[in-house]
Amino acid sequence: MRFELKNLKVAVLGATGMVGQRYATMLSGHPFFKLTTLTGNSSVGKIYRDAVHWVDHNPIPDEVANMEIVSTNPNNVDADLVFSPLPSDAARTIEPMFADAGIPVISEASTYRMDSDVPLIVPEVNPDHLEIISTQKRNYNREGFIVTGPNCTTSGLVMVLKPLYENLGVKRAIVTTMQALSGAGYQGVPSLSIIDNVIPYIKNEEEKIASETLKMLGTRNNETIEEGSLGVSATCNRVPTIDGHLETLYLESDKEIPIESAREALSSFKGIPQELKLPTAPREPIIICNEVDRPQPRLDRLSGSIPGMSVVVGRIREGLDNKSLRLTLLTHNTIRGAAGNAILIAELLVAKGMIGSR
Amino acid sequence: MRFELKNLKVAVLGATGMVGQRYATMLSGHPFFKLTTLTGNSSVGKIYRDAVHWVDHNPIPDEVANMEIVSTNPNNVDADLVFSPLPSDAARTIEPMFADAGIPVISEASTYRMDSDVPLIVPEVNPDHLEIISTQKRNYNREGFIVTGPNCTTSGLVMVLKPLYENLGVKRAIVTTMQALSGAGYQGVPSLSIIDNVIPYIKNEEEKIASETLKMLGTRNNETIEEGSLGVSATCNRVPTIDGHLETLYLESDKEIPIESAREALSSFKGIPQELKLPTAPREPIIICNEVDRPQPRLDRLSGSIPGMSVVVGRIREGLDNKSLRLTLLTHNTIRGAAGNAILIAELLVAKGMIGSR
Amino acid sequence: MRFELKNLKVAVLGATGMVGQRYATMLSGHPFFKLTTLTGNSSVGKIYRDAVHWVDHNPIPDEVANMEIVSTNPNNVDADLVFSPLPSDAARTIEPMFADAGIPVISEASTYRMDSDVPLIVPEVNPDHLEIISTQKRNYNREGFIVTGPNCTTSGLVMVLKPLYENLGVKRAIVTTMQALSGAGYQGVPSLSIIDNVIPYIKNEEEKIASETLKMLGTRNNETIEEGSLGVSATCNRVPTIDGHLETLYLESDKEIPIESAREALSSFKGIPQELKLPTAPREPIIICNEVDRPQPRLDRLSGSIPGMSVVVGRIREGLDNKSLRLTLLTHNTIRGAAGNAILIAELLVAKGMIGSR
Amino acid sequence: MRFELKNLKVAVLGATGMVGQRYATMLSGHPFFKLTTLTGNSSVGKIYRDAVHWVDHNPIPDEVANMEIVSTNPNNVDADLVFSPLPSDAARTIEPMFADAGIPVISEASTYRMDSDVPLIVPEVNPDHLEIISTQKRNYNREGFIVTGPNCTTSGLVMVLKPLYENLGVKRAIVTTMQALSGAGYQGVPSLSIIDNVIPYIKNEEEKIASETLKMLGTRNNETIEEGSLGVSATCNRVPTIDGHLETLYLESDKEIPIESAREALSSFKGIPQELKLPTAPREPIIICNEVDRPQPRLDRLSGSIPGMSVVVGRIREGLDNKSLRLTLLTHNTIRGAAGNAILIAELLVAKGMIGSR
Repeated sequence: MRFELKNLKVAVLGATGMVGQRYATMLSGHPFFKLTTLTGNSSVGKIYRDAVHWVDHNPIPDEVANMEIVSTNPNNVDADLVFSPLPSDAARTIEPMFADAGIPVISEASTYRMDSDVPLIVPEVNPDHLEIISTQKRNYNREGFIVTGPNCTTSGLVMVLKPLYENLGVKRAIVTTMQALSGAGYQGVPSLSIIDNVIPYIKNEEEKIASETLKMLGTRNNETIEEGSLGVSATCNRVPTIDGHLETLYLESDKEIPIESAREALSSFKGIPQELKLPTAPREPIIICNEVDRPQPRLDRLSGSIPGMSVVVGRIREGLDNKSLRLTLLTHNTIRGAAGNAILIAELLVAKGMIGSR
Repeated sequence: MRFELKNLKVAVLGATGMVGQRYATMLSGHPFFKLTTLTGNSSVGKIYRDAVHWVDHNPIPDEVANMEIVSTNPNNVDADLVFSPLPSDAARTIEPMFADAGIPVISEASTYRMDSDVPLIVPEVNPDHLEIISTQKRNYNREGFIVTGPNCTTSGLVMVLKPLYENLGVKRAIVTTMQALSGAGYQGVPSLSIIDNVIPYIKNEEEKIASETLKMLGTRNNETIEEGSLGVSATCNRVPTIDGHLETLYLESDKEIPIESAREALSSFKGIPQELKLPTAPREPIIICNEVDRPQPRLDRLSGSIPGMSVVVGRIREGLDNKSLRLTLLTHNTIRGAAGNAILIAELLVAKGMIGSR
Repeated sequence: MRFELKNLKVAVLGATGMVGQRYATMLSGHPFFKLTTLTGNSSVGKIYRDAVHWVDHNPIPDEVANMEIVSTNPNNVDADLVFSPLPSDAARTIEPMFADAGIPVISEASTYRMDSDVPLIVPEVNPDHLEIISTQKRNYNREGFIVTGPNCTTSGLVMVLKPLYENLGVKRAIVTTMQALSGAGYQGVPSLSIIDNVIPYIKNEEEKIASETLKMLGTRNNETIEEGSLGVSATCNRVPTIDGHLETLYLESDKEIPIESAREALSSFKGIPQELKLPTAPREPIIICNEVDRPQPRLDRLSGSIPGMSVVVGRIREGLDNKSLRLTLLTHNTIRGAAGNAILIAELLVAKGMIGSR
Repeated sequence: MRFELKNLKVAVLGATGMVGQRYATMLSGHPFFKLTTLTGNSSVGKIYRDAVHWVDHNPIPDEVANMEIVSTNPNNVDADLVFSPLPSDAARTIEPMFADAGIPVISEASTYRMDSDVPLIVPEVNPDHLEIISTQKRNYNREGFIVTGPNCTTSGLVMVLKPLYENLGVKRAIVTTMQALSGAGYQGVPSLSIIDNVIPYIKNEEEKIASETLKMLGTRNNETIEEGSLGVSATCNRVPTIDGHLETLYLESDKEIPIESAREALSSFKGIPQELKLPTAPREPIIICNEVDRPQPRLDRLSGSIPGMSVVVGRIREGLDNKSLRLTLLTHNTIRGAAGNAILIAELLVAKGMIGSR
């Protein structure tokens, strides 16, 4: 496959946050996209280098470091698409402004995720849900649109559930998460809260995991998405790791789940991004560890051909009976759980001709 | 109730380890027991103060600091009972030597826990299982005996399951643990393994949790214990906390579990130790947190009238249907999960007249 | 000595912060003081239990938990003295309001520390500096007054320097600190800044250490304090510990410093608080560790007869020549470095008759 | 410059340790060297992948993963040079065996560092000291030889001191270190020792820093090295960071040190490796941070054109008078402090024709 459309101009809204920084790094040298605009709020008018509290050990890409931050308004933004890692409150008013101005928005905010005409996408899982964009355009009578990616915890979970749900009849998932600090944003968790500690609660997270999973495992039925039929129970904990959400799963089917079938279903899982060889698509969406004490956040969060884009799975074993299955998974929360997944969505939209030069 | 037997002489075997240190602290000034002997292996002949790598911020009790460590042999030990925090390999040969020499052994080793004639006890949960000691004595033709306490993770779990299993028909427990470093012993987890990390596996732990829970929830039937009928699935993780094992539970019954009934069953749970007002019995075996983000290991592990002896429970809520229940619990792993539980067993044996001056 | 004045009514201003919590704990059951008022800002009208983000593992004292927080204004405060752990900006206007209203203020804010008529006190070091209160009263024509305690890092440092400066002619101190997170307040250091990291800078801290030390080692000369003649260079670092500031010192004298003399000067150091047996005075203001790898923050920060009030010193050894000395010290930053030192100042004021029932 | 000698065969002795792993990574694809042999002790006969507890998030290089580990004996090793990250005890007997067998050894052990005929080298600092190899060969009558690199803490320190000592007359250095966990080896620091803690002592480290610095800043005088004339006082602390030793320096000269001259001396510092453009030579041996709160271990340890090979310096400021200078430096302890420095030594030996195909 060849991609004729290149050098699409893209903007990042709210570019100084943790996820904004990931975009800056991941879009540097990207074959489809040229990062031309960074927006901010209190930092408007500053140079990015001065405005950002840069936390990655890789330096700020040169072409980004000296860009001036503009205010988050479609009039200031000359872009073919925008990436929005805005918080959900800000997203409520700002994202529709861009869509109404004809600019596609790839959003990580939770605000519009569950709207019936807004696709909620992990490209390997439910790329066909993008088709409801046309409904959205018609509903709002606009040329632009909003596409969303899931919560940082859901993204890895749904990738693992997809093949097990479809091939092995998994009907229930009991999930416990151990989530990294970066998921709460730079100021999110005070050090005094988490050194020698675990916080057994993350606000709103458990509800999102359940509802988003059902939407993404749902079936498109003309203009609507019919929810998947799966019970998902999540208990979310914050642990003192920097990046990488670890999740333990107890899965139940109404039929037998041979362990080897489960391993096979997971390791062979591929999607459209792999077929199309999209730039940010990892060769293996799901990597299986054979060591008994893996995946571990610090060692495995950057595994795979596109660091941070694969879900790493280990400890696959039978549950209390042969219709159940247990496993542990790890997702990089600011890459596959945020910026990386959004960029992959954008690449897919380009490949499908749904985004182009304006 | 009055206790005539006081100042029973007690020894701690392998007294320099993490749990050995807890005994030294908890037995200091104990109303029933006088710590007269400390045993060791490589440290024999040394003064305790010099032999121990003391890690508590409370100093070594004065009466213990200058005791000389003797070798772990009944001939060296003049005691009415011994506490054994020995590793399971050492326990295999050493504990029976003491029992054969007529000395009761309260053991935390896993070695004999599952033997049919060895009681595995949490005093609030299954005090009547102590009755099988007489079978053990007869089987081995000895005056001494071995009583065991459960794995550090099981102790809190079984206290919470007991009232829910008996009163609310809980039949299945899906457990994920986040366990503290002290559970692995002082040298157990290298710092390079756990800073900015979680280890998703603890050797042999998951099997122990399942089997020990069934034994402790079992019914004594003359001379045997009939296992409880409960499915327990455990997934164990090591996290960077110093003390306090946190566990998330998903529980299923074959009948409805009203949340208020569950709260009531937990908060009103009491046992023989509370009735007898044993010195190490906490007023509330189970403490319920109402804050949504509790229990937290650093803040709650020492809660209650006897610090570290209560299980702290929070996040009680319905599961995927009204026959299921979710909650999070915290146990202090070296107190209720080890030394404290063993001392409470010993107190119960004294109160029941099963241990006395020799 | 007998203290006739008891049950003085005291208030804590800004009582919900980290140091405010220490006051709540340390004043509970205090023989001189009765905590009658807590003030706050955004939390006015709330019950303390609900307003505070309590971080100590000891629970909120019962008599404090249900107190209602009032606004920080002398009209609302019926107290014989107030403790002020206010931030320096707030202290600027609020503390004089109380002093003008006739209420003595014991402050930990840096605002007035260096004013020539405001005593800056560590009770063991420079109790006679309290005499300049009369100058302050006259200057401002008020009955109340402000007394200050030093920065959390300076308090332990000056206790160690005092005997070495006076007895051994120490003239220069090269100090490197490794400071705990609680020194920055609860929201001070985001976890993402400090896990697997050290921050080699703390704003304004190095200047304070130098100037405050000189003032406290100074000589009272009628109504003024003549600065000590000592060069102090400080380099301050933030490390991932919860409580306890560790400091390495390189000290130089213009004469020989025999190591044994230094040890003797430190271990025999006592002050008025020890003579008067003030309730919060530790028996040993300076505790010397003999183990080569101590003091350690987690193990030693609560050492001594009044936990957190002693400075713990170790690694005493010669420097590059026999006129120099090296050592490492540890101070509990929210106790001796804040609330504990302030309470000890208040006790001293009571003992000297400088505070009484109004 | 062209290098005719390529594909020299190299071995790593004791290849499974933390530093051994760095060699495996850094030698992968190296333009001069081909890693052909890995040796071990208890792991002999195993495949590297199975023998190593791999801790880097970059995976084991493919060409290394399946190599079989042989015993550490010159008869088993077909190599033109060997890298030895052996512990000092093992190094004592093993390194001379290789040198006697005609094989050059680049060692990081402390064993032979201070021998008068053994060069102790940081290539940017004292490359001419390599000339004493001829003395060593003659003394031992052998074709092979031993060259050493300094302690992980000294390597960065000496790079910073070199230009200040030579250009600005620095005569005294008061150093406090905050050292990473990897410096102690994988099993070196138990997690229970260091969570919420600092250990204020590292065995033998302070003496090494002082003596090694003097040797490296010394002058070669025909066949001997005349020690530099500099007083170095070090106080060493272990902190909970994974990689990157942070050091605070207080420096004194007998003449004025203008800050700008110091900055200039540091930023312009270059050596033979930069002139020769050796593959592992960083473009800037010393990187100067301008942010007031840098360098930070997690953010800056991999700075520079060859990650981990530059020393990062910040907080340059005057001391107590204008003849003194303060700064903070950061070195990656397993790269510039170990494997990276050793590889750079080897590259320099190749460039100088002192190592070739055997």
